Amino acid sequence: MSRTPKLGSRGKPEETRREILDAAIQEFASEGVAGARTDSIALAAGVNKALLYYYFGDKEALYAAALDAVFSGLMGELHAVLQSPLPAGEKILHYAMSHFDYIAAHREYGRLLQHEMMRAQTGKSEHMQHMVQRYFRPLLMELTQLLTTGADAGQFRRVDPIQFIVSLTGINVFYFISAPIQSGMAGADAFSPERLQLRRMNAADMLASTLFVDAEQGRKLATSVVSKWEFKVPNKKSGKVVRK
Amino acid sequence: MSRTPKLGSRGKPEETRREILDAAIQEFASEGVAGARTDSIALAAGVNKALLYYYFGDKEALYAAALDAVFSGLMGELHAVLQSPLPAGEKILHYAMSHFDYIAAHREYGRLLQHEMMRAQTGKSEHMQHMVQRYFRPLLMELTQLLTTGADAGQFRRVDPIQFIVSLTGINVFYFISAPIQSGMAGADAFSPERLQLRRMNAADMLASTLFVDAEQGRKLATSVVSKWEFKVPNKKSGKVVRK
Repeated sequence: MSRTPKLGSRGKPEETRREILDAAIQEFASEGVAGARTDSIALAAGVNKALLYYYFGDKEALYAAALDAVFSGLMGELHAVLQSPLPAGEKILHYAMSHFDYIAAHREYGRLLQHEMMRAQTGKSEHMQHMVQRYFRPLLMELTQLLTTGADAGQFRRVDPIQFIVSLTGINVFYFISAPIQSGMAGADAFSPERLQLRRMNAADMLASTLFVDAEQGRKLATSVVSKWEFKVPNKKSGKVVRK
Repeated sequence: MSRTPKLGSRGKPEETRREILDAAIQEFASEGVAGARTDSIALAAGVNKALLYYYFGDKEALYAAALDAVFSGLMGELHAVLQSPLPAGEKILHYAMSHFDYIAAHREYGRLLQHEMMRAQTGKSEHMQHMVQRYFRPLLMELTQLLTTGADAGQFRRVDPIQFIVSLTGINVFYFISAPIQSGMAGADAFSPERLQLRRMNAADMLASTLFVDAEQGRKLATSVVSKWEFKVPNKKSGKVVRK
């Protein structure tokens, strides 16, 4: 990252804005909102602090923008999967694997969300209601539709959508939360390609076992989807994600 | 909590120590290690700060003791379930429900652990290796033994113990992490007795569906165990947990 202060946006306001946002995501992910310093963010982005304030207002507004960037990236990807023409069984498996890979590819995003969840638990988040409206509610509606489609076709058991999604999300998220413990236990890096693939297999097996009326058929489908799966690594330059 | 400073341990050192520890757990859970203030802990415990330092050394040592108290309570309970004479199917279900209830009954404990997990993820925790050795490794051995017993009897599928435990734990933990989002979505308090019981049913169903060779029989057992389940509420006086 450039450490030469940019004194203006030099005709690339979008690029500068994105650089500040990327630096803010890193800082908030590492330090939390309370601990984060706009000085550090400006330095990492290579801009002076006045420019940071010019673009984002204050630290809390910058934090809201960072959260929004993190969520909209993830939700955009999940929405694309849910709107794809895949059959219901394949679609729910692709959904779960895309969610998993997004967290694996954006480690700082997971930490940022954990900070926010903890703020929300102690009533300190003013952003939760906004995120529920903008992101979680539309996602729940799409997922509920998918679960209904699969159940109507006789392929899925009828499950409580919220409960099911909490479980699905927890299976993915907690893998990363507990990565340091797993390293201590298994002596293996939870982020190595082999461990990530082992995890995908296990998570997909659990999803299929729970959701499919014919669990054996569901597990076969899960094995087939995951064995052909290609990990998506983030493209550092564009911030977009590309297939490896 | 008493706000009259105690100038000495007044012949009840264990009680005073416990009061400091309880206040420390609350403060660390709410503020994290970096944000926590020993002034606030001493005030909440009703002791002067010199006494706090006399008992625990410094903030980091007090934090280590708080973590140890949280883990030893949870692990003691889980160990008791795993050493009980229950058959394998019942035992794994009781294990999962006891874990769930412990978190439900000790909300500040979950937050403290989340802080520590986040520290560990950014390499800031010096406690993780100790906790792996003292708590997670023995627990993994007991659980692996249980999974092997059930598989040898033809009742359980053969699963990867670490992967399975990560999923089981994630299903429970993430329910509480995401409680604010659920409230926003379902308009219901995730901690209400009804929602807790709904969650137990769903978590036990997923566990049974994944683990039992005969998923249908496993789900029947899960429903039977959970419908007879009694929530354990913590006894505020003794810090112990009692059946309601």
